[in-house]
Amino acid sequence: MKKVQLNPVGWMSQLSQIEVSQLQDTAHSQLFHLFKNCCLAVLNSGVDEDNFEALFAPYKDFNIKLVRRERGVKIELVNPPDVAFVDGELMQGVHEHIFAVLRDLLYMGNKYAFLKQNAPADGDSITDMVFDMLRHSNALEGNDNLNTVVCWGGHSINQTEYKYTKEVGYQLGLREMNICTGCGPGAMKGPMKGATIGHAKQRYKNGRYIGISEPSIIAAEPPNAIVNELIIMPDIEKRLEAFVRLAHGIVIFPGGVGTAEELLYVLGILLNENNAQQPFPLILTGPAGSEEYFEAIDDFVGATLGKAAQAKYQIIIDDPEEVARCMRGGFEKVREYRVAMGDAFSFNWSLRIEAAFQRPFIPTHASMSQLALHHQQSPGELAVALRQAFSGIVAGNVKAEGIAQIKAQGPFSLTGEAELMRRIDTLLESFVAQHRMKLPGSAYEPCYVVKSE
Amino acid sequence: MKKVQLNPVGWMSQLSQIEVSQLQDTAHSQLFHLFKNCCLAVLNSGVDEDNFEALFAPYKDFNIKLVRRERGVKIELVNPPDVAFVDGELMQGVHEHIFAVLRDLLYMGNKYAFLKQNAPADGDSITDMVFDMLRHSNALEGNDNLNTVVCWGGHSINQTEYKYTKEVGYQLGLREMNICTGCGPGAMKGPMKGATIGHAKQRYKNGRYIGISEPSIIAAEPPNAIVNELIIMPDIEKRLEAFVRLAHGIVIFPGGVGTAEELLYVLGILLNENNAQQPFPLILTGPAGSEEYFEAIDDFVGATLGKAAQAKYQIIIDDPEEVARCMRGGFEKVREYRVAMGDAFSFNWSLRIEAAFQRPFIPTHASMSQLALHHQQSPGELAVALRQAFSGIVAGNVKAEGIAQIKAQGPFSLTGEAELMRRIDTLLESFVAQHRMKLPGSAYEPCYVVKSE
Amino acid sequence: MKKVQLNPVGWMSQLSQIEVSQLQDTAHSQLFHLFKNCCLAVLNSGVDEDNFEALFAPYKDFNIKLVRRERGVKIELVNPPDVAFVDGELMQGVHEHIFAVLRDLLYMGNKYAFLKQNAPADGDSITDMVFDMLRHSNALEGNDNLNTVVCWGGHSINQTEYKYTKEVGYQLGLREMNICTGCGPGAMKGPMKGATIGHAKQRYKNGRYIGISEPSIIAAEPPNAIVNELIIMPDIEKRLEAFVRLAHGIVIFPGGVGTAEELLYVLGILLNENNAQQPFPLILTGPAGSEEYFEAIDDFVGATLGKAAQAKYQIIIDDPEEVARCMRGGFEKVREYRVAMGDAFSFNWSLRIEAAFQRPFIPTHASMSQLALHHQQSPGELAVALRQAFSGIVAGNVKAEGIAQIKAQGPFSLTGEAELMRRIDTLLESFVAQHRMKLPGSAYEPCYVVKSE
Amino acid sequence: MKKVQLNPVGWMSQLSQIEVSQLQDTAHSQLFHLFKNCCLAVLNSGVDEDNFEALFAPYKDFNIKLVRRERGVKIELVNPPDVAFVDGELMQGVHEHIFAVLRDLLYMGNKYAFLKQNAPADGDSITDMVFDMLRHSNALEGNDNLNTVVCWGGHSINQTEYKYTKEVGYQLGLREMNICTGCGPGAMKGPMKGATIGHAKQRYKNGRYIGISEPSIIAAEPPNAIVNELIIMPDIEKRLEAFVRLAHGIVIFPGGVGTAEELLYVLGILLNENNAQQPFPLILTGPAGSEEYFEAIDDFVGATLGKAAQAKYQIIIDDPEEVARCMRGGFEKVREYRVAMGDAFSFNWSLRIEAAFQRPFIPTHASMSQLALHHQQSPGELAVALRQAFSGIVAGNVKAEGIAQIKAQGPFSLTGEAELMRRIDTLLESFVAQHRMKLPGSAYEPCYVVKSE
Repeated sequence: MKKVQLNPVGWMSQLSQIEVSQLQDTAHSQLFHLFKNCCLAVLNSGVDEDNFEALFAPYKDFNIKLVRRERGVKIELVNPPDVAFVDGELMQGVHEHIFAVLRDLLYMGNKYAFLKQNAPADGDSITDMVFDMLRHSNALEGNDNLNTVVCWGGHSINQTEYKYTKEVGYQLGLREMNICTGCGPGAMKGPMKGATIGHAKQRYKNGRYIGISEPSIIAAEPPNAIVNELIIMPDIEKRLEAFVRLAHGIVIFPGGVGTAEELLYVLGILLNENNAQQPFPLILTGPAGSEEYFEAIDDFVGATLGKAAQAKYQIIIDDPEEVARCMRGGFEKVREYRVAMGDAFSFNWSLRIEAAFQRPFIPTHASMSQLALHHQQSPGELAVALRQAFSGIVAGNVKAEGIAQIKAQGPFSLTGEAELMRRIDTLLESFVAQHRMKLPGSAYEPCYVVKSE
Repeated sequence: MKKVQLNPVGWMSQLSQIEVSQLQDTAHSQLFHLFKNCCLAVLNSGVDEDNFEALFAPYKDFNIKLVRRERGVKIELVNPPDVAFVDGELMQGVHEHIFAVLRDLLYMGNKYAFLKQNAPADGDSITDMVFDMLRHSNALEGNDNLNTVVCWGGHSINQTEYKYTKEVGYQLGLREMNICTGCGPGAMKGPMKGATIGHAKQRYKNGRYIGISEPSIIAAEPPNAIVNELIIMPDIEKRLEAFVRLAHGIVIFPGGVGTAEELLYVLGILLNENNAQQPFPLILTGPAGSEEYFEAIDDFVGATLGKAAQAKYQIIIDDPEEVARCMRGGFEKVREYRVAMGDAFSFNWSLRIEAAFQRPFIPTHASMSQLALHHQQSPGELAVALRQAFSGIVAGNVKAEGIAQIKAQGPFSLTGEAELMRRIDTLLESFVAQHRMKLPGSAYEPCYVVKSE
Repeated sequence: MKKVQLNPVGWMSQLSQIEVSQLQDTAHSQLFHLFKNCCLAVLNSGVDEDNFEALFAPYKDFNIKLVRRERGVKIELVNPPDVAFVDGELMQGVHEHIFAVLRDLLYMGNKYAFLKQNAPADGDSITDMVFDMLRHSNALEGNDNLNTVVCWGGHSINQTEYKYTKEVGYQLGLREMNICTGCGPGAMKGPMKGATIGHAKQRYKNGRYIGISEPSIIAAEPPNAIVNELIIMPDIEKRLEAFVRLAHGIVIFPGGVGTAEELLYVLGILLNENNAQQPFPLILTGPAGSEEYFEAIDDFVGATLGKAAQAKYQIIIDDPEEVARCMRGGFEKVREYRVAMGDAFSFNWSLRIEAAFQRPFIPTHASMSQLALHHQQSPGELAVALRQAFSGIVAGNVKAEGIAQIKAQGPFSLTGEAELMRRIDTLLESFVAQHRMKLPGSAYEPCYVVKSE
Repeated sequence: MKKVQLNPVGWMSQLSQIEVSQLQDTAHSQLFHLFKNCCLAVLNSGVDEDNFEALFAPYKDFNIKLVRRERGVKIELVNPPDVAFVDGELMQGVHEHIFAVLRDLLYMGNKYAFLKQNAPADGDSITDMVFDMLRHSNALEGNDNLNTVVCWGGHSINQTEYKYTKEVGYQLGLREMNICTGCGPGAMKGPMKGATIGHAKQRYKNGRYIGISEPSIIAAEPPNAIVNELIIMPDIEKRLEAFVRLAHGIVIFPGGVGTAEELLYVLGILLNENNAQQPFPLILTGPAGSEEYFEAIDDFVGATLGKAAQAKYQIIIDDPEEVARCMRGGFEKVREYRVAMGDAFSFNWSLRIEAAFQRPFIPTHASMSQLALHHQQSPGELAVALRQAFSGIVAGNVKAEGIAQIKAQGPFSLTGEAELMRRIDTLLESFVAQHRMKLPGSAYEPCYVVKSE
């Protein structure tokens, strides 16, 4: 049995006795189970595999223990994957990630009772918690230069698209922008990789490659090799809020349902009239050959949320420099606005996010079937429902719990207005056709059926 | 009306909206009143005056406001003392101190309800709070080199003694030790001043000059010019606990009742048999000419707490180098012990402090008259009572509330065993005779009477 | 006409008035012509092109001026290539490289009269000059951790080999080793690129990617994008000496004639009996599929320099981790030896290099035809002659002057012992067959003929 | 016999083999003798003694050796003074100073042949050498913020004056200015000491306390404890040039003949019509009670160099804040001028200094008696002669060689115009009366006689 003890790093090296016992008390909790899985995912950092079962299968005897020392808490890894070690020593980056997971899951988990009834529920408290977690992970400190670009896009994209995301990252890096993504492979890795080269050429020393994940997705998308700051938010909604409040601009690359979910989320927020004045650079971009993808998306948005929503983004095809230049231009407006509002540069307080976007949506056969998929509501409300629908499909595709439900009860069914359902169906099928649902090598079996009312 | 707005520094520059409102909510509280007074004291940093009325008299129209900005909280000073400004700009050090006061008093005050019933009461919780406040003020981060010397001693000492404290500080500084004191003038300033020269000669860049104060004493002892880290603990007991848990060794210079109180505090703790194995360098030292002072103290300790207590310290007369060398030697034992115990270098968790030493003692005519000043108890318990007696006399001498009580009801009376009372009386009178009760220039009028049962 | 003025960086920002005038005086010299060409090469940094004519053709109106300011010397670029600019601003890395070229070519050139008769000629003075140039470029300061790996290999290698060099670089980087190469594409770029990822994973902040070039080769091999320290040595022999004195170990990847030259150079030195005790990690490595290359080389070395020479290196096929582990092991011996000798870690003073290896060899039809290609001499002397032969072929292949000679007078002819000539011929033909002579896309026309005496 | 070996620091840790042998070759030279004496002076750093014989007497068996190591040159101290050691280890600051002396005396001495005929003689070369030495000692790098104040004044001043120099230093330090002095006690130490407190209060981390000395004066004025950069210029003229080219402004405190020499030097330069436009803040200041001193000086300047010279400085009595404010104001003009001229911030290239001010003046009975002390010349020329006269008197007072001459041949005699001689005599006598010639405790015996023609 191989055992490795890790000394705490960062904030975790200064815990009080009471905090240490709290951590230890959780050692048999559900939270601890999550923590263990996330650590295993982190230890597989850099491995390309989105099937968590395949990923975890070889490590059934993996375990993790918290060892109490007067001077803080050590982590003991039992039978960890070899891939994370160099000549018997854990890689420093992975070491740091493990303690980032500890910090966010157990430490903040205790503070906010992630999994219990007393998690914050009202909007302001949720925002405060998102802020607190980002602050605690030191994500805010270096975020006041207005140069953080959040990149969204598929984990399963083709080589041309992957190369393109690197190119865009390179151009952003040359302009000394930092990258924040969902921290998996594909469009989450490419921009970071490109940016490192851009940063190197500009001798930019403080390059940040922030990965924001959440417990149910991290196993399917272990943080890539470049991520140098890892943050685990408790659920998908808080992760999305972290992205938009941290971002000074967002680039969306081709992707699948998850990417569509993210786009609907940010559009729903930007459609809120309280945010009408917010400058928010939002660029959809891909290489020549990926036009169709954006046409499909744009059509879908036009048909469902309308022209106002389409006006919130800009589509740029095959021009990485132009993407970077537009982003830079957009930042100027962001600067003016934040200064005018007295808002922080490091956290977008003034962006209004309605509670419907913050409340965790837990996809089940019941909740999926009851989504309000119709036009008898405002575009913002429709955006909420659409996002939830897509969120459920992501769960059914790659998350442990979702997959288990589908196995047990068959596909989710989505019901709604005929025309809307047709639109949804078309979009989803185009994703399947373009192999955007899974990493290559596996055939996609839909986890949903679409029905008209 | 002169107004100056200050941008937040350090941790205070990253507050959540909820934290900002909490701070503002306190704006009419008793805590805020304390805060305002502490700020005024800090703005007088470096001024030699221990009479708070004289100090505050010219600034009756001084005020302070918290200005809420989306990006944190600004402080607005109204009619601040000119002494803190250089060509119209607030000195950076004072600026930082103001925000340290804000952090400790209002921010931590809200967290721990300093002035209300729900302040932590059991021993472990108090220690945890002390730890939390020190951690939050970044005092622990640089404290793991085993080189922090706490210096205690009078704020009103003669020139020979003051020069001697500088010499000792110089020798400590040459050995790359940092200084922590109560942050006023006299023996709290000298060692810091000396250490800066020692540090400079050794090109030691990370010199720390930590001042730990508390709301009721800071006005009488504004932080001296050298202090580069200021911490305000909520009361005298937590301040004392902060000193002993942060210290790797303690030097005691000549002083008055406050110094005696501090000595009794640490002796009482070291007499606890749980601490029998703790190496704890404790050196009493002064220049040639101050021997009497230490003889009086040593006699008093021998007669009251016994030989075991005398064995806990070493007296060194007129030999700064020897003080520094002994301290260095002692640190080696501290290192071995902490390593053996698995204890932190930055915070002495394993030192047992009984609740009687942690519970706030509020001196009133009633509480003073009921102190258990007799030998029908363990030396540790007697140490508690003696410390409280001296603590009350300090209050009656220099603290606003204490002075008010004496004005209203006459001197405190202390009652106890005849021989013990005689010892106390002798010691106190020697302090008066040696002008150790007040800064020079004012005659001392005792705030206590001593009676035998 | 586009003009860009550059402020001096690094050492160049502090020149005396006399130094500035000396630089300006050279403005019409041959040295200045070299300087201009090197700058143009640097401005094309990252462009893959080894034909200097093709590289320079579009920039016939490129020019460079030194602008004298009281506070130093500015560089004015006239019509520089767009590729070096981001939104109109020169990339910081290229900016620094330009001033590195200025520093090494003009500033050190003036000091050492690179191109004139009074350049240092005796061995010690040459070594001193090599040291001085490396010191002046700050290459020595960070070189005392015994972790600099010099990587040699072809600029024109296939994708499998290129990927392999990245893998090796990655494994070296994971072990916190720095990379030094000849600064072009191919095997000079791959290890640097791989090392950046390894360094990032280990949070190693001080990654050094040192490129050492010389005026006649830099145009054919512009510094790749990763190089963060650029050094221009005056000629090929001093460049080689810089490599071996800076290196703590050397990895040789597949390559062409240039790589063979480098191997012969280091073997010739290590065969010197004064260096018999020197530990010097020297590893030849390539991916599966490149075995033939090393067999050919190893055969050639065995047949020409003998078993003693073969014993100086280790061949590792398709095992990047093993390469890195062996290197690490070798460093331990280097450490012991340097400590025992009192030698510097940052510069290998104790390595004996005979004058024959230091004296510039200028390939002409005459000098090439007179090379002593026979066994009537020591293996060290034969190594000198072989290295010079290969050096001449590199010149004929890619250097401006060499190509001009070949154009004018036909191929160089090499004459020597029949068996030796056959060996040379076989080796060179294997390089041609393996496309190691030029970047892909151009057919290779030999610049030499081989004749037996 | 006590021996201590010192590892090289700074630039000295990277010497080539040839440089090391050059240093060793000097080991029996006159330069080496100077070097040894300077080291002894540095080892007495902080000791108040201006009689070099008294200072050196206890250390007759002190010696110093250069130990050649492959990796540089070590220094071996034989029987060094205890005062420089802490628990057997040399203080880091002194350690650095020793290598600064090595760097400037031996290393630069070899380069510039300080003591031989081939030292640079023409003006531009001298300036270049001054620049080169300052650059090599890293004095220029941090000097581009326009905040370096050179302070001149006596090493033997009374307590009131000393305290005043501290006050001025404090006010300069509060405004984040750095201090450069002649590095002895008195007015050379006070401003540095005051500035450290000012810097500490402003949390100014990069405080520079530059001491510029020269071999013949350093023994009489060992660098004080605060100096963190020590530079040894080869002779008094180059030291003066270093002061005025490094300075952004100059403060002159009360002093003796040396101070008068310095004032005459800078006035002579500022009177040069090429410097008519140079803004050059020059402030004469002292506490209440020192007015006479400045009246005497001002009268003397008025009577000898005229009103134009008086217009070059400003006299401020007893107002440290005003001194600092004026200096700050002056810096603004310096900034404008340097920008307009394209001159460096770190070195005042555009200040014209005539050769007469640069050529070393070696005081002998002959040279002193031939000084052109009359008005038949320009004020600038008269300034030259007056400076030299005072320079000779300084030598006769405190320098080894001067004292030896006086011992052997009696006092120097100065001859010139009756009125001028009377003025000189009056000034010098006022210095004697004010005890400004020697450190207290020794009666002053004049080393000169003044005669009219």
